Amino acid sequence: MISKKLQQHSANLRSNKAFEMFVVGIIVTSALLVGAKTYDMHPAVEQFVQWLDYLVTLIFLTEITIRFLGEPEKRKFFKDAWNVFDASIVLVSLLPIENSDMALVARLVRIFRVLRMISTITELRMLINSIFKAMPQLGYVVLLVFIIFYIYAAMGSTLFATINPALWGDVSISMLTLFRVMTFEAWVDVMYETMEVYPLSWTFYLSFIFLTAFTFLNMLIGIVVNVMNDEHRKVYLKKSGHKHEPTIEDLYRKIEAIEAHMARAAEQSRKPDE
Amino acid sequence: MISKKLQQHSANLRSNKAFEMFVVGIIVTSALLVGAKTYDMHPAVEQFVQWLDYLVTLIFLTEITIRFLGEPEKRKFFKDAWNVFDASIVLVSLLPIENSDMALVARLVRIFRVLRMISTITELRMLINSIFKAMPQLGYVVLLVFIIFYIYAAMGSTLFATINPALWGDVSISMLTLFRVMTFEAWVDVMYETMEVYPLSWTFYLSFIFLTAFTFLNMLIGIVVNVMNDEHRKVYLKKSGHKHEPTIEDLYRKIEAIEAHMARAAEQSRKPDE
Amino acid sequence: MISKKLQQHSANLRSNKAFEMFVVGIIVTSALLVGAKTYDMHPAVEQFVQWLDYLVTLIFLTEITIRFLGEPEKRKFFKDAWNVFDASIVLVSLLPIENSDMALVARLVRIFRVLRMISTITELRMLINSIFKAMPQLGYVVLLVFIIFYIYAAMGSTLFATINPALWGDVSISMLTLFRVMTFEAWVDVMYETMEVYPLSWTFYLSFIFLTAFTFLNMLIGIVVNVMNDEHRKVYLKKSGHKHEPTIEDLYRKIEAIEAHMARAAEQSRKPDE
Amino acid sequence: MISKKLQQHSANLRSNKAFEMFVVGIIVTSALLVGAKTYDMHPAVEQFVQWLDYLVTLIFLTEITIRFLGEPEKRKFFKDAWNVFDASIVLVSLLPIENSDMALVARLVRIFRVLRMISTITELRMLINSIFKAMPQLGYVVLLVFIIFYIYAAMGSTLFATINPALWGDVSISMLTLFRVMTFEAWVDVMYETMEVYPLSWTFYLSFIFLTAFTFLNMLIGIVVNVMNDEHRKVYLKKSGHKHEPTIEDLYRKIEAIEAHMARAAEQSRKPDE
Repeated sequence: MISKKLQQHSANLRSNKAFEMFVVGIIVTSALLVGAKTYDMHPAVEQFVQWLDYLVTLIFLTEITIRFLGEPEKRKFFKDAWNVFDASIVLVSLLPIENSDMALVARLVRIFRVLRMISTITELRMLINSIFKAMPQLGYVVLLVFIIFYIYAAMGSTLFATINPALWGDVSISMLTLFRVMTFEAWVDVMYETMEVYPLSWTFYLSFIFLTAFTFLNMLIGIVVNVMNDEHRKVYLKKSGHKHEPTIEDLYRKIEAIEAHMARAAEQSRKPDE
Repeated sequence: MISKKLQQHSANLRSNKAFEMFVVGIIVTSALLVGAKTYDMHPAVEQFVQWLDYLVTLIFLTEITIRFLGEPEKRKFFKDAWNVFDASIVLVSLLPIENSDMALVARLVRIFRVLRMISTITELRMLINSIFKAMPQLGYVVLLVFIIFYIYAAMGSTLFATINPALWGDVSISMLTLFRVMTFEAWVDVMYETMEVYPLSWTFYLSFIFLTAFTFLNMLIGIVVNVMNDEHRKVYLKKSGHKHEPTIEDLYRKIEAIEAHMARAAEQSRKPDE
Repeated sequence: MISKKLQQHSANLRSNKAFEMFVVGIIVTSALLVGAKTYDMHPAVEQFVQWLDYLVTLIFLTEITIRFLGEPEKRKFFKDAWNVFDASIVLVSLLPIENSDMALVARLVRIFRVLRMISTITELRMLINSIFKAMPQLGYVVLLVFIIFYIYAAMGSTLFATINPALWGDVSISMLTLFRVMTFEAWVDVMYETMEVYPLSWTFYLSFIFLTAFTFLNMLIGIVVNVMNDEHRKVYLKKSGHKHEPTIEDLYRKIEAIEAHMARAAEQSRKPDE
Repeated sequence: MISKKLQQHSANLRSNKAFEMFVVGIIVTSALLVGAKTYDMHPAVEQFVQWLDYLVTLIFLTEITIRFLGEPEKRKFFKDAWNVFDASIVLVSLLPIENSDMALVARLVRIFRVLRMISTITELRMLINSIFKAMPQLGYVVLLVFIIFYIYAAMGSTLFATINPALWGDVSISMLTLFRVMTFEAWVDVMYETMEVYPLSWTFYLSFIFLTAFTFLNMLIGIVVNVMNDEHRKVYLKKSGHKHEPTIEDLYRKIEAIEAHMARAAEQSRKPDE
């Protein structure tokens, strides 16, 4: 009985606009606290910031509890990835890691609370969702680019390791060097160094730039095409209220049916004359 | 009476093609003056440029007055953002800030008069309008990118502040450093410096580059899709003279209506036979 | 009589496939000669290259003469911009500028003969044509970007001229510096230098990068949208052999006409019953 | 008889899912071995890696033999470019080039075995196929860009060779320098150096950047447009099961036919009345 009433109260609070605004305000405060800590502060201010920080933690804990209590079916709550995301951020920041050794980790955990900004603002949540939807189609392109990187890195460390071990020492260092080449960051210096030993090694760099640029370009196009089609379809279905949108193909079939109908009608009207 | 006549005269002058060309000419002159002042000049020439500058200010004032007088309803004049823009640029350049202390500010104000080029040439005004229309949809993407920047900057200044305070001293300096990393400007040096203390810090830079690049990419696509749809719709509506453009959906419904009609007709023609 | 025959012979030769291949071969040879001259050569080889060069000039002259003679209407020949382009390249390379003073100019003129590659290969000519068609719509965008550059350059040289005259001395030097900032080339060094005097000058650079990047982005989109629509329309018209392509709008009207027809027919069939 | 049975056994094995997974596992192992060799290893480990390497070669040979035997028509096997690709990679890695002189070549050959990852995973194979399909349309754009590079390189080495032979010595070195300018890598240093002798040489660099950027931009658009159309058509045909997809044009013709039919019907129904 009591839990039922509590659930309803929580649900009301949860869908309250003012409550939502309050939570956003707290998250912004928590973000500002995170930023403030990176500046040198007077000990008194630092103490105040510390207390504000505890307060934010407390409010976050209260808020997630209210949201959990407000859920009619408790299991459903943890099926929403965003709830799990929020809950784990709040829970991790409760861990008693305030001693000097772990102070750094504690501060980093606090920073991740800013991510709650994304889960709380609906439009940002939608933006992230749409990015996640584009992920699977990107997977194979990323794999292909990784294979290209790996092969060039293996070649690079086989050929150039003795020239400059800091850049081409082993396959993982070489991959970092190649990523740098792909961002065009001082890549000419890297190239000139190896060209002194292998004068033709410019072919290595140019082919690599063409291959990765070309593959990335295709990745871009792949996303554009898909997102555009999906977007267009969604807008269309929303407008028409249809489950299945009519295509030019459907129109064609409809008109074929009309033709068939007319042909039959003509047949019939001719028959009685005979 | 007099004001009525004056309004008409002004309105005629305002829509005069030669007057418009004259104004564009004056703006170009004012732009050239602004440029000329950045060169070292003979005092006599400088004096001449100064006088020309006063003349331009006078002409601008006259022109905006004519445009204001030419407007039948005075209130409407200030509802057009472009008029307010023009008027405030002209008015600010009238302020008597010629003394030595404010000379710099006076010169900067003059430079902004070049912006009147945009408000005077119709095609540029339209271009700016279309950019402003794309703004709201960009807003949330910019917010998301800002959050990513903020979190990485907070992490960066927490971890790397002791390594190089000039780059990672506090959260705002770190954001500037991250912007530099995003433009790939000597970012490898920034990375190598922190990798000496935290060998795994390359993950920090690579994940940041991927996240911001990926989000920007989506921003690009978002704009492309929207602008394309809008453009297409506008062109279509203009051509057809329709308020509401027929879609494949509309065609489908029309054809369904014809089918229904034919079915009824067939029904009727069969009935009399019975 | 003779000229008539000559015209026909020339016209035949001109449309001969082997002749075209021969001309392409000569252009490639001329391009290789241009490249060869940039290497140090044995005097004997240099002499040989020189003779080959004269031969290429002679062949080019013969070829353009044949093409001119092959044209039935001489006026039409100079109406094609590509013919004027070819003729002027050939004529300029005939100028007797072989003396030591003008040797450099003579060599540069030779280099431009490689451009004949574009006018001779049909696909490249079409590519250039399509780029020229996209030009007018780009015009206003380029003007807008130029205005932004000009205003920032004027501000830059007003504020920073005393800090580093080599970068911000006057408005034209500043524009070159800003172009460098736009390509992200060592722009951080430029910024850090002015930030020592004006700590807030990072706003100058960041706003500039956003404005130009954003405008360029719109330029890109503008081209994409237009080229896509045009391409699509062209392909469509080619396929259907229509002057005017049917749109969904046309379909809609057609179906409305059928409905009207059916309504009238129903009216008529009802009337006799009355 | 025996060969028939062997073929069937091989065909069964070839289409076995577990067998495919096993092959992918071996390729990944071979890739890891390639990477492992770039690190310094204990002689014992190195010996073990060497033996693993032989084992991988043996398995690859067995696998390609099974795939070959499994093919009912032996000629068809070599018509598939991917089979030829796989077979040649395996055969080349069998060559006895283990002596010290050729050790480097042997190691490079091993690296290319990682490419079998692409030929084995269907999605990657499809990705590569689609890239190859876009190639021909890119051909002429690449040729155009090459011509622009060549002309600028010839001009550059004619004008600037004496200023810095390391950058502009001959036409091929100049092309490499121009590629560097196109990637915006320290291009300002290259420009400032030549501007000391030719103060107007910034026009050379800016026009080059505009030309190549603009052409590349068109290349991008060309691909986007084509790939989008093709993709859209493919998806459409797949859905409808048609060989030839109905267009708005087809609909238009259909409706015209219905109109003609109705007109004829109306004519006939009027005639009996006369």
